[in-house]
Amino acid sequence: MDPHSLTRELHVKNDSKIVMLVADGLGGLPMTPGGKTELESAKKPNLDALARIGVQGASIPVCPGIAPGSGPGHLGLFGYDPVKYLIGRGALEATGIGFHMQPGDVAARGNFCTLDASGKISDRRAGRIPTEESAPLAIRLREAKVPGYETFVEPVKEHRFVVVFRGAGLAGNVKDTDPQAVGVLPLAAEAHDAASKKTAEIANQWIAAATKLLAGEKKANGLTLRGFAGRPNLPSYEEVYGLKAAAIAVYPMYKGLARLVGMEIIGRAQSLSEQIDVLEQNWSKFDFFFLHYKYTDSTGEDGTFEAKVKKIEEFDAVLPRVNALKPKVLIVTGDHSTPSYLKAHSWHPVPTLLVSDCCRPDGNTTFGENTSIRGGLGHFKAKYLMTLALANAGRLTKYGA
Amino acid sequence: MDPHSLTRELHVKNDSKIVMLVADGLGGLPMTPGGKTELESAKKPNLDALARIGVQGASIPVCPGIAPGSGPGHLGLFGYDPVKYLIGRGALEATGIGFHMQPGDVAARGNFCTLDASGKISDRRAGRIPTEESAPLAIRLREAKVPGYETFVEPVKEHRFVVVFRGAGLAGNVKDTDPQAVGVLPLAAEAHDAASKKTAEIANQWIAAATKLLAGEKKANGLTLRGFAGRPNLPSYEEVYGLKAAAIAVYPMYKGLARLVGMEIIGRAQSLSEQIDVLEQNWSKFDFFFLHYKYTDSTGEDGTFEAKVKKIEEFDAVLPRVNALKPKVLIVTGDHSTPSYLKAHSWHPVPTLLVSDCCRPDGNTTFGENTSIRGGLGHFKAKYLMTLALANAGRLTKYGA
Repeated sequence: MDPHSLTRELHVKNDSKIVMLVADGLGGLPMTPGGKTELESAKKPNLDALARIGVQGASIPVCPGIAPGSGPGHLGLFGYDPVKYLIGRGALEATGIGFHMQPGDVAARGNFCTLDASGKISDRRAGRIPTEESAPLAIRLREAKVPGYETFVEPVKEHRFVVVFRGAGLAGNVKDTDPQAVGVLPLAAEAHDAASKKTAEIANQWIAAATKLLAGEKKANGLTLRGFAGRPNLPSYEEVYGLKAAAIAVYPMYKGLARLVGMEIIGRAQSLSEQIDVLEQNWSKFDFFFLHYKYTDSTGEDGTFEAKVKKIEEFDAVLPRVNALKPKVLIVTGDHSTPSYLKAHSWHPVPTLLVSDCCRPDGNTTFGENTSIRGGLGHFKAKYLMTLALANAGRLTKYGA
Repeated sequence: MDPHSLTRELHVKNDSKIVMLVADGLGGLPMTPGGKTELESAKKPNLDALARIGVQGASIPVCPGIAPGSGPGHLGLFGYDPVKYLIGRGALEATGIGFHMQPGDVAARGNFCTLDASGKISDRRAGRIPTEESAPLAIRLREAKVPGYETFVEPVKEHRFVVVFRGAGLAGNVKDTDPQAVGVLPLAAEAHDAASKKTAEIANQWIAAATKLLAGEKKANGLTLRGFAGRPNLPSYEEVYGLKAAAIAVYPMYKGLARLVGMEIIGRAQSLSEQIDVLEQNWSKFDFFFLHYKYTDSTGEDGTFEAKVKKIEEFDAVLPRVNALKPKVLIVTGDHSTPSYLKAHSWHPVPTLLVSDCCRPDGNTTFGENTSIRGGLGHFKAKYLMTLALANAGRLTKYGA
């Protein structure tokens, strides 16, 4: 069920403040049977103090067993059913590099490739050409034009770039031009539906012009496009929750995801401490604050257990500054687990802590995986976290008489 | 998912008796961090004895974060998905005062209001006119007639009354006539769909006749209608569960809700002890008994923690009489939480206890919020409680071969 079908009707406004602290990839695993997880190993006096007055639960990002990427992971936390709301690959890539997609835009992921004399693909990733060499090529592609349409090209990493098409009558249901094989020609862009015919046409014109610009390049003289996608049409926080919401993030991806649900991106923080500065400075201006902390995920992906522990401890250390602001509702969670043991996003439920004056504390005295699975919030789908936040903030009236 | 899609096919009959004791608003909160809830504070030797042989769980009335009214709260307990099955405001109000709506009836909530010389609303609630003064006015409105249709008017409290229209071709999708503002004329009733056109027409004729009857009244010389709604079309307990079911309630609202799912209303008990008398007297005649106990909710709504504790203790005291009847399945639950701390219905999961010879006891030795969240039934949506009841009663065959 879509929580918005209820929150849209039931939300009311008041002066409460809600803070959602997202430690990316927070959940973990022990490195050996019987061991502790990263979170359980960390010295985290402030989180444990919150655990004593709060309520915990195990947040399931999508459904049991499904490890989400950053897109569905955050959509879930924001209360948008991540199965219902898909962010197409191209749109997510554009969002991730900070490109502001407008309604009607269609984005695609581009791969530089190597073509042989007959135009057939000899290397689908152009030998994983280094970013220093590929970025200038991506910039050059900005010269490829299609009359009547705007195109935007942004470098990404190695052989990857993003292209966005803007103009009348575009839709994102277009087949990849990457044949997923070598020794064959790149495919033509082909529409899956009538609404996307114009997009396929424009894309083919643009590919022809762009390929011409790459002629003679040794490593990367061709390209393919994948993951065509329009800007996802997500209802705003204001509409579904009645919240004026702000996002405080360092990385473009999380700013982009927050922007898609209508949050305002505030500050230019480059560190957690600066993020808290931004939170303090903007306290009076918003109802809801999403603060994204990246390093619990990146250390987990690196497989560096001790480094992840340290990042959790650094996160814990700033909590008194957040507490001092006296939010009505304070939430600590993650968009998914990233166990150092797996060096990857995982499906494990995410330890989640909610503190408010009416949260019904569950008797836990520390915060971790093993306490969260026995917490008062139970095992719940992440998409209900915002509903719980609103309820604890007194921002939902009752359903039915 | 709709539990009835399975129970309708799988239910079988036997001689077992199921008793569902609903202590309205049972769940609570501590008044101070680290404190106990009302249920945890109460001396309840009989509930604790049942906890030792039973299985507990945390019942989620609708979904996490949503506080239900009595309508959706009880529909959930009865196994009817409270998001799928809506009882319109007018129908709930009629139900709540004990009016027996028939299929095809349309009910609306009425407000007496004050009109100025030009017919514009000067007070939308007629100064919250006392019931002693408004009830005779509501009775007088019974004289307003619409040819070819029956109308029924019942007083409610203060400025409120209920009107029910009966006749061919009526449906409930009609706009409120309350403009939600003063200094403007009441709106005309207007149909939202073709099926409701006749209702709007009849309503407008009735309003004209009724307003004429109020002419000259100082406090309440006008009226508005809100929440038009047909009788909800709920499948019966007999159909979806194969149960001959009885309801033992003191208040009209709960009798009405039970009647909507096909329960028979038995007895005229005015106290809990008399309700148990009725239960004993009718033991042989029904398969399922719903017994509603109001005072855990009303004391919670009053914010009187100690009074709620006392009402729980009084509830506990009658349990030996229920046990003596040896039901195959005994359930103790609530339709939602009503913490004294909040003085209102809340979203918190409801402590729920199920006892049968095959319930798989969970090792708990007392009954409360903190034991229920760690109980053997887990955190479950209320709509599955009836499925659990039937299973424990041996009244469901297996699904699939």
